[in-house]
Amino acid sequence: MGEISKTPKPPYYAVIFTNQRSADDDTGYAGMAERMVELATRQPGYLGMESARDEDGFGITVSYWRDEASIRAWKLEAEHLEAQRLGREKWYKNFFLRVVKVERAYEFEK
Amino acid sequence: MGEISKTPKPPYYAVIFTNQRSADDDTGYAGMAERMVELATRQPGYLGMESARDEDGFGITVSYWRDEASIRAWKLEAEHLEAQRLGREKWYKNFFLRVVKVERAYEFEK
Repeated sequence: MGEISKTPKPPYYAVIFTNQRSADDDTGYAGMAERMVELATRQPGYLGMESARDEDGFGITVSYWRDEASIRAWKLEAEHLEAQRLGREKWYKNFFLRVVKVERAYEFEK
Repeated sequence: MGEISKTPKPPYYAVIFTNQRSADDDTGYAGMAERMVELATRQPGYLGMESARDEDGFGITVSYWRDEASIRAWKLEAEHLEAQRLGREKWYKNFFLRVVKVERAYEFEK
Protein backbone atom coordinates (compact mmCIF):
# COMPACT_ATOMS: atom_id res chain seq x y z
CA MET A 1 0.00 0.00 0.00
CA GLY A 2 1.35 3.38 -1.03
CA GLU A 3 1.98 6.31 1.26
CA ILE A 4 3.09 9.92 0.89
CA SER A 5 6.70 10.61 1.94
CA LYS A 6 7.23 13.43 4.42
CA THR A 7 10.28 14.85 2.68
CA PRO A 8 12.22 17.88 4.03
CA LYS A 9 12.19 21.35 2.45
CA PRO A 10 13.61 21.45 -1.11
CA PRO A 11 16.07 21.33 -2.71
CA TYR A 12 16.67 17.58 -2.77
CA TYR A 13 16.83 14.91 -5.46
CA ALA A 14 14.54 12.14 -6.67
CA VAL A 15 14.47 9.21 -9.07
CA ILE A 16 11.21 8.72 -10.98
CA PHE A 17 11.08 5.07 -12.03
CA THR A 18 8.18 4.39 -14.41
CA ASN A 19 7.76 0.80 -15.50
CA GLN A 20 5.59 -1.85 -17.08
CA ARG A 21 5.84 -5.27 -15.42
CA SER A 22 6.14 -8.37 -17.55
CA ALA A 23 3.94 -11.36 -16.68
CA ASP A 24 6.98 -13.30 -15.36
CA ASP A 25 7.82 -14.47 -11.87
CA ASP A 26 5.48 -12.56 -9.62
CA THR A 27 6.74 -14.21 -6.45
CA GLY A 28 10.39 -13.41 -7.08
CA TYR A 29 9.45 -9.85 -7.91
CA ALA A 30 7.48 -9.18 -4.72
CA GLY A 31 10.31 -10.45 -2.53
CA MET A 32 12.90 -8.41 -4.40
CA ALA A 33 10.77 -5.25 -4.26
CA GLU A 34 10.35 -5.61 -0.51
CA ARG A 35 14.06 -6.21 -0.01
CA MET A 36 14.97 -3.18 -2.14
CA VAL A 37 12.75 -0.92 -0.01
CA GLU A 38 14.42 -2.30 3.12
CA LEU A 39 17.91 -1.73 1.67
CA ALA A 40 17.15 1.75 0.29
CA THR A 41 15.85 2.86 3.68
CA ARG A 42 19.29 2.13 5.18
CA GLN A 43 21.26 3.96 2.47
CA PRO A 44 22.92 7.28 3.36
CA GLY A 45 20.90 10.22 2.08
CA TYR A 46 17.62 8.29 1.72
CA LEU A 47 14.61 10.57 2.31
CA GLY A 48 11.60 8.47 1.31
CA MET A 49 9.87 6.40 -1.34
CA GLU A 50 6.40 6.48 -2.93
CA SER A 51 5.01 3.71 -5.09
CA ALA A 52 1.79 2.90 -6.94
CA ARG A 53 0.94 0.16 -9.46
CA ASP A 54 -2.35 -0.22 -11.32
CA GLU A 55 -4.16 -3.47 -12.16
CA ASP A 56 -2.46 -3.64 -15.59
CA GLY A 57 1.03 -3.79 -14.09
CA PHE A 58 1.94 -0.18 -14.86
CA GLY A 59 3.85 1.27 -11.93
CA ILE A 60 5.54 4.45 -10.75
CA THR A 61 8.07 4.50 -7.92
CA VAL A 62 9.61 7.77 -6.79
CA SER A 63 12.53 7.62 -4.37
CA TYR A 64 13.83 10.76 -2.67
CA TRP A 65 17.48 11.49 -1.86
CA ARG A 66 19.52 14.22 -0.18
CA ASP A 67 21.84 14.69 -3.18
CA GLU A 68 23.12 13.15 -6.40
CA ALA A 69 25.95 11.34 -4.63
CA SER A 70 23.36 9.37 -2.60
CA ILE A 71 21.61 8.33 -5.83
CA ARG A 72 24.89 7.20 -7.40
CA ALA A 73 25.81 5.17 -4.31
CA TRP A 74 22.38 3.48 -4.27
CA LYS A 75 22.65 2.67 -7.97
CA LEU A 76 25.94 0.83 -7.30
CA GLU A 77 24.86 -1.04 -4.14
CA ALA A 78 25.67 -4.73 -4.75
CA GLU A 79 22.26 -6.33 -4.13
CA HIS A 80 20.59 -3.48 -5.97
CA LEU A 81 22.84 -4.07 -9.00
CA GLU A 82 21.68 -7.69 -9.06
CA ALA A 83 18.05 -6.59 -8.77
CA GLN A 84 18.58 -4.19 -11.69
CA ARG A 85 19.98 -7.06 -13.77
CA LEU A 86 17.01 -9.32 -12.97
CA GLY A 87 14.63 -6.44 -13.64
CA ARG A 88 15.95 -6.03 -17.18
CA GLU A 89 16.09 -9.79 -17.72
CA LYS A 90 12.74 -10.85 -16.25
CA TRP A 91 10.50 -8.42 -14.42
CA TYR A 92 10.12 -5.36 -16.64
CA LYS A 93 8.80 -5.13 -20.17
CA ASN A 94 10.08 -1.60 -20.29
CA PHE A 95 10.93 1.26 -17.99
CA PHE A 96 11.98 4.90 -17.92
CA LEU A 97 14.22 6.23 -15.18
CA ARG A 98 14.56 9.97 -14.58
CA VAL A 99 16.91 11.70 -12.14
CA VAL A 100 15.41 15.00 -11.04
CA LYS A 101 16.06 17.90 -8.72
CA VAL A 102 13.08 18.84 -6.54
CA GLU A 103 12.86 22.64 -6.56
CA ARG A 104 9.50 23.36 -4.92
CA ALA A 105 6.97 21.33 -2.95
CA TYR A 106 3.46 21.88 -1.62
CA GLU A 107 1.53 19.66 0.78
CA PHE A 108 -2.19 19.37 1.42
CA GLU A 109 -3.77 17.44 4.27
CA LYS A 110 -7.41 17.35 5.27
CA MET B 1 -4.30 2.25 -17.99
CA GLY B 2 -0.90 3.83 -17.52
CA GLU B 3 1.75 4.27 -20.16
CA ILE B 4 5.36 5.49 -20.30
CA SER B 5 5.78 8.99 -21.80
CA LYS B 6 8.30 9.32 -24.60
CA THR B 7 9.78 12.58 -23.36
CA PRO B 8 12.58 14.43 -25.21
CA LYS B 9 16.19 14.67 -24.03
CA PRO B 10 16.61 16.47 -20.67
CA PRO B 11 16.57 19.10 -19.33
CA TYR B 12 12.83 19.60 -18.95
CA TYR B 13 10.45 19.96 -16.00
CA ALA B 14 7.92 17.76 -14.26
CA VAL B 15 5.26 17.87 -11.57
CA ILE B 16 5.09 14.83 -9.27
CA PHE B 17 1.58 14.72 -7.83
CA THR B 18 1.27 12.07 -5.10
CA ASN B 19 -2.18 11.68 -3.60
CA GLN B 20 -4.57 9.65 -1.51
CA ARG B 21 -8.14 9.62 -2.82
CA SER B 22 -11.01 10.06 -0.42
CA ALA B 23 -14.00 7.72 -0.73
CA ASP B 24 -16.16 10.57 -2.12
CA ASP B 25 -17.73 11.00 -5.53
CA ASP B 26 -15.99 8.46 -7.72
CA THR B 27 -18.00 9.31 -10.82
CA GLY B 28 -17.30 13.02 -10.66
CA TYR B 29 -13.64 12.28 -10.13
CA ALA B 30 -13.23 9.99 -13.14
CA GLY B 31 -14.83 12.54 -15.47
CA MET B 32 -12.70 15.36 -14.12
CA ALA B 33 -9.50 13.31 -14.35
CA GLU B 34 -10.22 12.47 -17.98
CA ARG B 35 -11.02 16.10 -18.80
CA MET B 36 -7.79 17.31 -17.13
CA VAL B 37 -5.70 14.92 -19.24
CA GLU B 38 -7.46 16.21 -22.36
CA LEU B 39 -6.87 19.85 -21.35
CA ALA B 40 -3.24 19.33 -20.29
CA THR B 41 -2.43 17.70 -23.63
CA ARG B 42 -3.45 20.92 -25.38
CA GLN B 43 -1.42 23.24 -23.12
CA PRO B 44 1.72 24.88 -24.55
CA GLY B 45 4.85 23.08 -23.38
CA TYR B 46 3.09 19.81 -22.45
CA LEU B 47 5.42 16.81 -22.97
CA GLY B 48 3.54 13.87 -21.45
CA MET B 49 1.83 12.38 -18.42
CA GLU B 50 2.20 9.12 -16.50
CA SER B 51 -0.27 7.90 -13.91
CA ALA B 52 -0.77 4.87 -11.65
CA ARG B 53 -3.18 4.23 -8.78
CA ASP B 54 -3.25 1.16 -6.55
CA GLU B 55 -6.33 -0.64 -5.18
CA ASP B 56 -6.20 1.42 -1.95
CA GLY B 57 -6.63 4.72 -3.78
CA PHE B 58 -3.00 5.82 -3.52
CA GLY B 59 -1.93 7.43 -6.77
CA ILE B 60 1.05 9.06 -8.45
CA THR B 61 0.70 11.27 -11.52
CA VAL B 62 3.78 12.75 -13.15
CA SER B 63 3.25 15.39 -15.84
CA TYR B 64 6.15 16.59 -17.99
CA TRP B 65 6.65 20.14 -19.27
CA ARG B 66 9.11 22.05 -21.43
CA ASP B 67 9.82 24.69 -18.79
CA GLU B 68 8.58 26.28 -15.56
CA ALA B 69 6.47 28.85 -17.41
CA SER B 70 4.40 26.00 -18.91
CA ILE B 71 3.78 24.60 -15.42
CA ARG B 72 2.70 27.99 -14.10
CA ALA B 73 0.31 28.52 -17.04
CA TRP B 74 -1.22 25.06 -16.51
CA LYS B 75 -1.65 25.72 -12.80
CA LEU B 76 -3.67 28.86 -13.61
CA GLU B 77 -5.83 27.40 -16.42
CA ALA B 78 -9.48 28.18 -15.50
CA GLU B 79 -11.01 24.68 -15.58
CA HIS B 80 -7.92 23.30 -13.89
CA LEU B 81 -8.26 25.85 -11.07
CA GLU B 82 -11.82 24.63 -10.50
CA ALA B 83 -10.61 21.00 -10.52
CA GLN B 84 -7.95 21.91 -7.95
CA ARG B 85 -10.62 23.45 -5.74
CA LEU B 86 -12.85 20.36 -5.98
CA GLY B 87 -9.83 18.14 -5.38
CA ARG B 88 -9.11 19.83 -2.05
CA GLU B 89 -12.79 19.92 -1.13
CA LYS B 90 -13.87 16.41 -2.12
CA TRP B 91 -11.56 14.06 -3.96
CA TYR B 92 -8.28 13.99 -2.05
CA LYS B 93 -7.64 13.09 1.55
CA ASN B 94 -4.14 14.45 1.15
CA PHE B 95 -1.57 15.12 -1.53
CA PHE B 96 2.00 16.24 -2.09
CA LEU B 97 2.96 18.21 -5.17
CA ARG B 98 6.59 18.58 -6.21
CA VAL B 99 7.96 20.70 -9.06
CA VAL B 100 11.18 19.17 -10.34
CA LYS B 101 13.81 19.64 -13.03
CA VAL B 102 14.62 16.46 -14.96
CA GLU B 103 18.38 16.35 -15.34
CA ARG B 104 19.08 12.84 -16.69
CA ALA B 105 16.94 10.07 -18.14
CA TYR B 106 17.47 6.45 -19.16
CA GLU B 107 15.08 4.22 -21.07
CA PHE B 108 14.88 0.43 -21.29
CA GLU B 109 12.71 -1.48 -23.72
CA LYS B 110 12.67 -5.23 -24.35
